[in-house]
Order: sequence, then C-alpha cells, then structure tokens
Amino acid sequence: MGATLVITLLTDFGLRDPYVAEMKAVILSINPSATIVDITHLVEPFNVRMGAFLLASAYRYFPKGSIHVGVVDPGVGGRRRPLLIKSRNYAFIGPDNGLLALAAKLDGVEEAYEITNPRLMLPEVSKTFHGRDIFAPVAAHLSLGVEPSEVGERVQSFKEPSFARPRLEGSRLLGEVLYIDNFGNVVTNIAEELVKELGAKAGDELSIQVGECEFRCRFVKYYSMGEPGELLSLVGSHGFLEISVNLGKASERVGAKLGDLVAVERF
Amino acid sequence: MGATLVITLLTDFGLRDPYVAEMKAVILSINPSATIVDITHLVEPFNVRMGAFLLASAYRYFPKGSIHVGVVDPGVGGRRRPLLIKSRNYAFIGPDNGLLALAAKLDGVEEAYEITNPRLMLPEVSKTFHGRDIFAPVAAHLSLGVEPSEVGERVQSFKEPSFARPRLEGSRLLGEVLYIDNFGNVVTNIAEELVKELGAKAGDELSIQVGECEFRCRFVKYYSMGEPGELLSLVGSHGFLEISVNLGKASERVGAKLGDLVAVERF
Amino acid sequence: MGATLVITLLTDFGLRDPYVAEMKAVILSINPSATIVDITHLVEPFNVRMGAFLLASAYRYFPKGSIHVGVVDPGVGGRRRPLLIKSRNYAFIGPDNGLLALAAKLDGVEEAYEITNPRLMLPEVSKTFHGRDIFAPVAAHLSLGVEPSEVGERVQSFKEPSFARPRLEGSRLLGEVLYIDNFGNVVTNIAEELVKELGAKAGDELSIQVGECEFRCRFVKYYSMGEPGELLSLVGSHGFLEISVNLGKASERVGAKLGDLVAVERF
Repeated sequence: MGATLVITLLTDFGLRDPYVAEMKAVILSINPSATIVDITHLVEPFNVRMGAFLLASAYRYFPKGSIHVGVVDPGVGGRRRPLLIKSRNYAFIGPDNGLLALAAKLDGVEEAYEITNPRLMLPEVSKTFHGRDIFAPVAAHLSLGVEPSEVGERVQSFKEPSFARPRLEGSRLLGEVLYIDNFGNVVTNIAEELVKELGAKAGDELSIQVGECEFRCRFVKYYSMGEPGELLSLVGSHGFLEISVNLGKASERVGAKLGDLVAVERF
Repeated sequence: MGATLVITLLTDFGLRDPYVAEMKAVILSINPSATIVDITHLVEPFNVRMGAFLLASAYRYFPKGSIHVGVVDPGVGGRRRPLLIKSRNYAFIGPDNGLLALAAKLDGVEEAYEITNPRLMLPEVSKTFHGRDIFAPVAAHLSLGVEPSEVGERVQSFKEPSFARPRLEGSRLLGEVLYIDNFGNVVTNIAEELVKELGAKAGDELSIQVGECEFRCRFVKYYSMGEPGELLSLVGSHGFLEISVNLGKASERVGAKLGDLVAVERF
Repeated sequence: MGATLVITLLTDFGLRDPYVAEMKAVILSINPSATIVDITHLVEPFNVRMGAFLLASAYRYFPKGSIHVGVVDPGVGGRRRPLLIKSRNYAFIGPDNGLLALAAKLDGVEEAYEITNPRLMLPEVSKTFHGRDIFAPVAAHLSLGVEPSEVGERVQSFKEPSFARPRLEGSRLLGEVLYIDNFGNVVTNIAEELVKELGAKAGDELSIQVGECEFRCRFVKYYSMGEPGELLSLVGSHGFLEISVNLGKASERVGAKLGDLVAVERF
C-alpha cells in the first residue's frame, strides 16, 4: 500500500453541517497526500439499508486497495462495535450495523476486526461522532500502510442488512424496491441474471406490481427506446431491474417507496 | 500534457446517487493522480440548455489543458453520438446534444470527434450510463496524454443549443433569462457590450420586462449600492445583465422563469 | 510553507451555481497542487453568524498551516474591507464582516491585514464576486509561500459577530441557539465547562427553555442512551450543549430557530 490510495466517504450527514469536512481534515492531518472521494452524504438519516445499497453500487469502480468509510450510525456511542472488514480488493470501515456488509460480501470477505486500538484514533474520542474520532483516523492510518490486524481483535461475524430475497417463483420474479434515484428510476434488487431466467427479451411486455400499483410496460434496453413519458422497465447501469419513465419520474407515476415489494411476470 | 491536468464534471445526477462517485472512481482507476473538480451536479434533470450555460460560465477559469466532462444526456444509449471537442485551450467530452457547444465555441473550436474507440472505454459499456462507461474513461486517458484524434473519426459539425439571440432593436435590448442563481439573481444572456451600446450608466433608471412582469429599477455596479430590498439591475460576475434584489430574491419578486423573454429600455 | 497546504472553502453559494467551481479553478490555475476541501456551501444566504459558527467548528481539525477562505458577503463591492487574519496555526481570508473572527480568535489572532495588493488578485476584479477575483487567488498565492504581510496594510481591528454571551446566572445557564444540524440537533453556545459549573451529571433531569418552549429532559452522554423518540440533552461533538431526540428531530419537537434564547436549570 502506498500513500496515494483512495479513501471514500459515505454518510447521512447532509451537505450543510461541518461533519464531513471534519472527517476530511482528520484524514489529511494524518496522511496529507490521501485522495478523498465522496460517494454520497445524502443517505436518509439513520437509513442503514439505503447506505448499504449505495456503497454496494459504487465501491467496485474504485482502484484496488481503496478504503471505504461508511457512517450511518444511529447507535454511535452505545454497544454497536466499530468494524473493519478486509475484503478481496478493499477495506471497509464503519459501525457494525449492516452498512458495510452488503458491499464487503459482494467483493469477498477475507477478515473482520473490531476496532479498539486507541493509538489509531483521535486522542479524545467523543461519544457522538465516531466518524471523525475513530473511522477517519483509522482509514488514514491504513492508507499509510498500517495492517488491518493492528486495529483490534478479529471477529467471526458481523451484522447484515435484510432485504426481501430476490427469486423466481413459478412464472413470477419477486424482489423489493432498493432505491429511487434522482431521475425517479425505481431500482429493484432483481439482478439481470434472474430477468434472463424469466426469459424476458427487449420488446416483451411485462406485467409488474410495485407495492399496491399494478401496470404493464415494455422491457427495453435504454430509456429513449420509449416514447417521451412512456413507462418502461429495463436493466439499469448496476445490473438490476428498474422501472423508469422516459424523460419523466417513474417513482411518482407508480407511487413507489423504498422497501415496496415487487412482482414481475411476462404478459 | 502531464498527469496533473484537471478533469471537471458537470451533470444532472444530483448529489444523493452513486453515479458521480462512479465516474470519479473510473477516472482514478486509470489516472490515480488526476485532479477532479465538480462544476455542478444539480443541473435540472435533462435540461441541456441549463447545463450548457453553467459549463460556459465556469470553463474559462480552469488551467489551460483542463478536460471538461458534461453529462446531461436524455438520449443515452440511442442515436446521439458521444462527442469530443478540442477547443483552443480545453477539451470537452459528452453527448452531442448541445451541452458542450456553447463553451467550446466561446473558447474557439479546433476539431471535433465522434468517440468510438472501445479501447478507451470500460470493457462493458451499459446502455444507460455513458458518463461512467465512455466519457469518464476517455477523459482519464486524455489526461494521460492520449491524443484527441485517437478517440474516433473526425466530425464536421455538432448540435448547438438555441437561445433567443441577444440584440439591440432600436432603443430596446432583447434577450432571455438564462439562469437563476442561489441568491435569486436573474441572469440574462445580454452581455455587457450590448448594455454599453444601449448607453446605460451606473445610476440610470431602466425600464425592464421579464416575461409578463414590467418594472423600473436603477442600473448599479454592485448589489449593496441598492437599499435593502431594492430591485436592481447590474452586470454580474459573468459579464451578463442581471436583475437582482439587494439582500433578497429578484426571481421571486418578478416571477422569472428560465427562458422568459427580456426587454430593456432606458427610462 | 509548501505546495501541499490545504485550502478550505466555506460559502453561501449553494451547490448548483458555478461560483464554487470558479474559485477552485482560480486556485488551481495559480497552485496546481493545492489540496482544496469544501467545508460547506450551504450557509443560509447572507447569514454571516451561521457561517462564523460553521467555520469555528471545523477549522481546528485541519493540518496546521491550512488556509481557510470564507465568503458570506452581502456587502461585496461596497465599503467592507477584504481581510486576512493570521492566527496561531492558520490563515483566514474573506470579507471583514464577522465571518472569520470567531474562528480566528479561538485559534489566537496574531496579525490582520486589509487585502489591497492587486498583484495577488485576478487581473480584472468584478464588483460582485470577490470570492473568485480576490479571496481565491490570495489564498492560492499564500499556499505558494507569499507572506501574509504582502497582501496589504496591517489593521488593528476587525468586525466580530455578536452572540448572546453564554453564562451561569445563579442556578440558570443562559445562552442561545447557534445551529440546527441535519439530524435536527439543536446546538447551543453553552460550552461543556459551563455545564460542569452547573453541576449536571449524566442521568440528571434538566429543565430547559428554548425560545417559547419549556420542557424537561434527561442529560445523557450519547443519543442512543435515550429511548427511541426521547427528548434529550447532551454535550455534542463540538463541546456545546445540544438538545436532541434519539432517532428523531429535536428542532421540530421544540420548534427551535437560530438565535432563540436558551435557559437551563437542574430539576
């Protein structure tokens, strides 16, 4: 590991407060040549599942060796453990509440540690902001070559977020709404492979239920294959089935919310 | 070209989604020492004209050799071409839909290319996210010294955004509302030179129409030359005529919207 | 001073407009290896006190020698002076309107200067955007080794923001609401030392008034010591007394606004 490793940050801190800047300041005080990249700071406050999804979407595009710090941390100061997971290509640092697990498992978990070594933290650790006082300095030290095993004792398990398992039951694909993006695309947790098992091809009509809303729409390859305003389904850029409206907001059209159950059939 | 070139990003992706981070991750995977600067990610979804204005405002302050990547791309995956424009001092990369043209023409277009070389893209190119799969990696390769001509075939023309041509007709300046900023300043496309042709001097009273709203106000040099709450006009920091309220929001006072026609006369 | 100094930016420009990018572009044109960190750009427009608080919260975590640029500048172009304050560990650059004073005094003011040297500014200085035309280039030159005394004449005083002085009167702690963060935590200007003078210990019940709203709540060490939805008070990560709701928004519960007076008694 060299000094030019990327450290990424994903939090629910929003963009007005000084908290993100304080984490960056701590990192640069320890490793002045760290490259810091924001994944997002607009996770809904305390929404660990949304944070887990966003981290799992973005982590894989970063250079091998990158260190991903996630802070969506309603239990800060209490009994939840500070966690480091070393996966095949990355290190993940944050609270042990499910935030890191989805991404780390996709990459292949190698080892996990409870962070306890005070020499890798700020001298004074507050009870309310471990992002600044524990996770940021640990990431900075790691970027300078500190080994994962130096952060504390190895642990055998960690918390995982729960999602409705995506699956094909008879002729129906089942899953849930993972995310709604800036364009109103409704992203499900149904991966491209399952869509292939259903036998759906570009141009097919699908019958879809999202929460209480049932509708039919074409399965296409990209948004502008539809007419302006047409409701569509397609496999999005992360490899998951999405409900979309060309030049419009599918989330408003079908009234989708995070966690809504999704069922898909060929028509 | 060296490895310290600046790559800028301008998109309509918003700040919650993982898309911007994925573009940065791709760039840093190819050129770990790239300096990446966000221009904005809050262009209104699909509003190519707004993106074109913002890019044209900011591009010129960056070091010569900077590479500007713009992604406001309602036609992604369809027939619109991926485009690289080499201008006098910069390179512009993005969809051929008018987004890049305004800035590139202001700087002086030298050559334009359709991006087709798969060796400069990600191995798998999605149909829905060319920002990550095509534009980001091409920019990164360019920052490492790849020549513009290596991206694909030269093209003779590209799309341009249409704005109401600013002009002096008799004693009236005519133009349109290009942008409304965070302070509610209503930025027109009437440049300082035209204001001089009208003969307006600091302290003069102007008669202005924006959309349906007609009003009179003083022409001043800076905001605090007005009383608190006073409606004003002045030449803003980009050299265009603005309607402003000292310590208030002119956009709300005069009900201005993007694209509203503007007419200005001396009173 | 070397070329790897950190330059921070704090403004009320918001995140859509091109203004922040233009400041970064100017800095990188002068010092291509500057490390630029955003503190925030979501200060309420013209709210100098909010900007002063946010700067005073974040500045101290940055490496010694960092240069902090603040631009909340309703008087731009008028008579307020462009200011540089050299404090013990940092330099602060921005308008002389109180924005910089709180942080600089906490760090220990050494010298202050009115910025007048045109060789350290952009060749053309607009009347409306000193952030780009004066403050950014001065910061960049400083990061390259220019001495603070080269920016202009020394000044003996500068403006300071006014806050209700936090104090213990008899058995009551008095102060005001400084800030409301993304989680709805209501941050007062009552420092931990004063809370100790009151004799409050974890588990004690406090009687608190914020603006018109009176309530009792437990004084705890961290948010999740409370039940979900419980109104709490605690010393937050910046060392000030906060009113909070575990997993909820205290600001909405007690109807707090910036500047509300706060009174605290042991029950």
